[in-house]
Amino acid sequence: MSLDENTPDTDLEAHAREILSGQAFSQMLGVELVTIAHGRSELRMPITDSHKQHLGFTHGGAIASLADMALAFAGGPMMGGGAVTQEFKINYLRPGIGEAMIARGQVVGSGRSQAVVRADVMVLADGVEKLCATAQGTIMKPGA
Amino acid sequence: MSLDENTPDTDLEAHAREILSGQAFSQMLGVELVTIAHGRSELRMPITDSHKQHLGFTHGGAIASLADMALAFAGGPMMGGGAVTQEFKINYLRPGIGEAMIARGQVVGSGRSQAVVRADVMVLADGVEKLCATAQGTIMKPGA
Amino acid sequence: MSLDENTPDTDLEAHAREILSGQAFSQMLGVELVTIAHGRSELRMPITDSHKQHLGFTHGGAIASLADMALAFAGGPMMGGGAVTQEFKINYLRPGIGEAMIARGQVVGSGRSQAVVRADVMVLADGVEKLCATAQGTIMKPGA
Amino acid sequence: MSLDENTPDTDLEAHAREILSGQAFSQMLGVELVTIAHGRSELRMPITDSHKQHLGFTHGGAIASLADMALAFAGGPMMGGGAVTQEFKINYLRPGIGEAMIARGQVVGSGRSQAVVRADVMVLADGVEKLCATAQGTIMKPGA
Repeated sequence: MSLDENTPDTDLEAHAREILSGQAFSQMLGVELVTIAHGRSELRMPITDSHKQHLGFTHGGAIASLADMALAFAGGPMMGGGAVTQEFKINYLRPGIGEAMIARGQVVGSGRSQAVVRADVMVLADGVEKLCATAQGTIMKPGA
Repeated sequence: MSLDENTPDTDLEAHAREILSGQAFSQMLGVELVTIAHGRSELRMPITDSHKQHLGFTHGGAIASLADMALAFAGGPMMGGGAVTQEFKINYLRPGIGEAMIARGQVVGSGRSQAVVRADVMVLADGVEKLCATAQGTIMKPGA
Repeated sequence: MSLDENTPDTDLEAHAREILSGQAFSQMLGVELVTIAHGRSELRMPITDSHKQHLGFTHGGAIASLADMALAFAGGPMMGGGAVTQEFKINYLRPGIGEAMIARGQVVGSGRSQAVVRADVMVLADGVEKLCATAQGTIMKPGA
Repeated sequence: MSLDENTPDTDLEAHAREILSGQAFSQMLGVELVTIAHGRSELRMPITDSHKQHLGFTHGGAIASLADMALAFAGGPMMGGGAVTQEFKINYLRPGIGEAMIARGQVVGSGRSQAVVRADVMVLADGVEKLCATAQGTIMKPGA
């Protein structure tokens, strides 16, 4: 499937769900696609015992993984099929303690071969969302 | 257990193994501690189908998770028990295709409450290591 | 002068102007404070020949310097007098060609000893602002 | 002048000196090229009153600027003439107090269109070098 700026959001979503379900790693983490649109993504990951580190908080690696996915699903479609994360940085703000993590990606700008994307990762506890981590990175066109 | 610069490397290793085995997330990823010393760490993660994304490469989130662990195990002991990753950035250089990923963390400098650490993540294929990703981040003293 | 969350914005602005005018480097770059409030800052830097690299664009170092100042002026007051930039990352999106650069900093979250801040750097050309670069970093409490 | 991996180091150095002397911003900061080779660079910046912030330390923006130059001069030649910094991150370790700053860039890996580079920025005081800041970033082929 070829993606570009004219791809309808419904096709985009079908394509994204297909990619996500084809990622064994994302499946192992229980990540689900909530919404996707051109330049935006929302993903959800449950917090189970398997996501935790030794102190009982969500492991920073699991949080970074979810952030990476939100960056890629927000910026990827703008860069065409096969786009990959080139780099990202993440800042942690509070321990991930709760029922689930929700990551929202948003393209802030893009050029011919790169999309610069930000993603906020919220922790959901007792129905209240709080900012747990925030990331910024680059999604690169394949072959660039 | 309280850690400081005088902790013998053997105690450091026992402590690190205890932490790692207490992290369900690291266990799910199959991460093993190869070596640890003051300011240095080496961790290994097998590449199984569960670590992969839809194209058959190791998922960037799994690579970032391993990098995060190498940063924390290198810088954590210098910051005392309970130290956490405050932030990091990672650049991806080549697809993670092979049998295993090996991450080596190295403290490059430290102050009262932070250690700045770098980690190279190698992919091991047919017995040859190649640089797959490289990370730089901050490990923060607890309560700082 | 001691700063905290109850400091009126007018005092905050007076304090910020005093700091900026005491920074020879910021003065050399011609940086001016446009506005400041708790958790937010706006700074402006003219683009003169002195800001340029060999191709005639604003040097990436000048852009990074302005971003660093926007991060520090947004997050600094929340961390108290003497707060410093601990780390930041910047992504460049388009060449800085125009009359001036405008940087807007915004705290996205803060804890006891750190504020995580983002800053967008716009280039102003013919009266139109376009996103030139975007940064994310940490402002640290002094002595932390 | 066209650069590639076969360019002799002497030509590389002549080319780099020409670029640096054509950068008004670098000249304003007094930056000098110490050495350059394929994948490596060393630059020096004097610390004068003009480089300082309000507390008398070298401004973080000046340090980031020097780091940016070291990254670009290390990675640029590998990416061909006209290569630009796409992104970088910097961690600050100690105040820049002394006579000069010395930045050393080193390519850690490269692909078709990007070189990933690290740069250590040392502060030189009373003849002794200490690590002041460390950076990691991407130099991108022009037009990529």
